[in-house]
Amino acid sequence: MIKIVIMYPNKEGTRFDMSYYIEKHMPRSIELLSAHPGFRAVTVEGGVGGAVPGTPPEYVAMCQYTFSSTEEFLDAFLPHAEELQGDIPNYTNVQPVIQINEVLITK
Amino acid sequence: MIKIVIMYPNKEGTRFDMSYYIEKHMPRSIELLSAHPGFRAVTVEGGVGGAVPGTPPEYVAMCQYTFSSTEEFLDAFLPHAEELQGDIPNYTNVQPVIQINEVLITK
Repeated sequence: MIKIVIMYPNKEGTRFDMSYYIEKHMPRSIELLSAHPGFRAVTVEGGVGGAVPGTPPEYVAMCQYTFSSTEEFLDAFLPHAEELQGDIPNYTNVQPVIQINEVLITK
Repeated sequence: MIKIVIMYPNKEGTRFDMSYYIEKHMPRSIELLSAHPGFRAVTVEGGVGGAVPGTPPEYVAMCQYTFSSTEEFLDAFLPHAEELQGDIPNYTNVQPVIQINEVLITK
């Protein structure tokens, strides 16, 4: 099982419209990707703070898609890549950091 | 519901003993923290690659604890902080990036 982790850096000058992201972008993304048989789960999270109380979070928002495999994810995502990536400027001016993880322990 | 996300940067010179992390450190961490009533879930993940095929992941490993609240997490973690943080040099030489997220959407 793999996770696609999408993280939006909380840099100086970062614009991030959380309402648009939570109410428009992610519901549409989830509607499209969760229809694929390889879809397992998704979580969308807003950064609250760093490890030290009062410090800002490294990322303003994170999205994590769990899929059965990277191939299944790409098969789900690529047909909608243009629409979903084209929507990014509507809620942020930062380039997300994206990585693929292998899930090793869950409880 | 909140998540504590712990991310180990994949920098040049990063040493990370995944076997020790998966077989010793995280099982002990989970044994201690999952006993708390505020515990909801945990996943431990290894970085496989970046968004572009063949590129390295930003983080070599990630751990995510879901708890009912930050207060409940701290109540679970603080009594074991010394043991768990003291074990970090046994598997890595990098300082993890830690942030607290609010879970906004799950499916």
